[in-house]
Amino acid sequence: MVILDGKKTSEDIKNEIAKAVKNRKNEGKKTPHLAAVLVGSDGASMTYVNSKVKACEKVGFNSTLIELPENTTEDQLLDEIKDLNKDKNIDGFIIQLPLPKQINEQKVLMAVDPNKDVDGFHPVNVGKMALDLSTFLPATPYGILELLERYDIETSGKNVVVIGRSHIVGRPMSILMSQKRKVGNATVTLAHSRTSNLKEITAKADIIVAALGIPEFLKGDMVKDGVVVVDVGITRVKDDTKKRGYRLAGDVDFNSVSPKSAYITPVPGGVGPMTIAMLLKNTLLACERNES
Amino acid sequence: MVILDGKKTSEDIKNEIAKAVKNRKNEGKKTPHLAAVLVGSDGASMTYVNSKVKACEKVGFNSTLIELPENTTEDQLLDEIKDLNKDKNIDGFIIQLPLPKQINEQKVLMAVDPNKDVDGFHPVNVGKMALDLSTFLPATPYGILELLERYDIETSGKNVVVIGRSHIVGRPMSILMSQKRKVGNATVTLAHSRTSNLKEITAKADIIVAALGIPEFLKGDMVKDGVVVVDVGITRVKDDTKKRGYRLAGDVDFNSVSPKSAYITPVPGGVGPMTIAMLLKNTLLACERNES
Repeated sequence: MVILDGKKTSEDIKNEIAKAVKNRKNEGKKTPHLAAVLVGSDGASMTYVNSKVKACEKVGFNSTLIELPENTTEDQLLDEIKDLNKDKNIDGFIIQLPLPKQINEQKVLMAVDPNKDVDGFHPVNVGKMALDLSTFLPATPYGILELLERYDIETSGKNVVVIGRSHIVGRPMSILMSQKRKVGNATVTLAHSRTSNLKEITAKADIIVAALGIPEFLKGDMVKDGVVVVDVGITRVKDDTKKRGYRLAGDVDFNSVSPKSAYITPVPGGVGPMTIAMLLKNTLLACERNES
Repeated sequence: MVILDGKKTSEDIKNEIAKAVKNRKNEGKKTPHLAAVLVGSDGASMTYVNSKVKACEKVGFNSTLIELPENTTEDQLLDEIKDLNKDKNIDGFIIQLPLPKQINEQKVLMAVDPNKDVDGFHPVNVGKMALDLSTFLPATPYGILELLERYDIETSGKNVVVIGRSHIVGRPMSILMSQKRKVGNATVTLAHSRTSNLKEITAKADIIVAALGIPEFLKGDMVKDGVVVVDVGITRVKDDTKKRGYRLAGDVDFNSVSPKSAYITPVPGGVGPMTIAMLLKNTLLACERNES
């Protein structure tokens, strides 16, 4: 069993990006600049946003964190987005999800300039992704592709099962893995809450991407020997033995699944850090595109 | 075995549209107007475009057929599209594919105003489709959903296998069937040329959508009893016994598959007429949207 070390791999990628940024600076080119908008003070969201900002610093990007109060109105947020769209200094920006209930998430995502949409959530970028055109790939699926690629895991002709049909992970993952790309050409089955015979389906999978958001859902008796397992889940599970009162659990029951796996991502330290690395990669790409 | 009669069902839909158009006229509202652009004189393309124009007449739409010579340049076609985008009288228009080699298909499709893109091929409409937002669904997958719905075929929790990953049929079909929609919630596997164990996969399918473009590819020994089969293929196969020198063949070997099927579409008279009906439905929708 080999651990798909997202932490190490993401460090490699960040080092590559840092080098590219250094070269840019030496050539007198613009420093990539990512902005992040956080509305409210949800604990997990704050953690995520802060990791993203820290990662920017690490690779030499400029970053701006815009913190808005929980009671921000939709119009106020849309005004903020308009400013970011116009600001030539900002190459890309993200709106940390979820948003407070008074704000229509879809409306907000559609207001982001697709050329600055480094999360790849705007419909035109989702469409380009589905059509295999150049775009910003959503960071989590992009990170998974990169992780599989760097570990030389063959995907062509393999049976891939993606569990969970979310717009930001499961759906794009299922699309990307079945496209004619280096990490792709797989026969992909997208399973979800309405799937009736999940165990039968996962038991035949060569590669499983678990992205349903239910802690430790995938058990050892649901997979075959030699499976490759990518765990996208990261849920805070109450745990009084921990100082902070919770532990982080993936969608995969690591203890029972890992002995049967050829490769498996840990939680934390698997998909999470890869997601951040790919967000940086998209921001660098946005910066490069803006000058061409 | 029940024939999924696309010809009859499409007539029903066209009658419904004709009624809606009549009501619109009585209320003094605009008559829906579809334009079709045909570049060159490919036999099959001419047949398709003419069927679409005829269908417009049948339901009381206005229609415009724009025929451009085979040697039309990309810029000339883009100019034509600009005019159609601006023309307030035109509610929707389509560019008949394939285009001659000197023209970049993707560039052309991206030039179409998404609000007039009744084929649903523009990336922003593809993205909206993938995100389950209101849009123009591509006509062939839309027609299949409608056919399954009108025959009350249960899809929720069923194993659906889509064969073929084209942008206009296989890919959107695989996405739509797995979404939380009335005809949807299926566990979808998208198979394609790189799929290594196709027979094993199709043999477990409750519903198969064959859209790979290889005549009579799907044989009886590849399906289970009681399967629902949708045949999207329509290829001209040389046949000297026919007056016109060819016959139309689907991707399904009807003779061996139909005895095992609970439901099956014929070719012709299955998916083809449904596609045209849904193009009309999208045009009506475009017209309604323009006035609201």
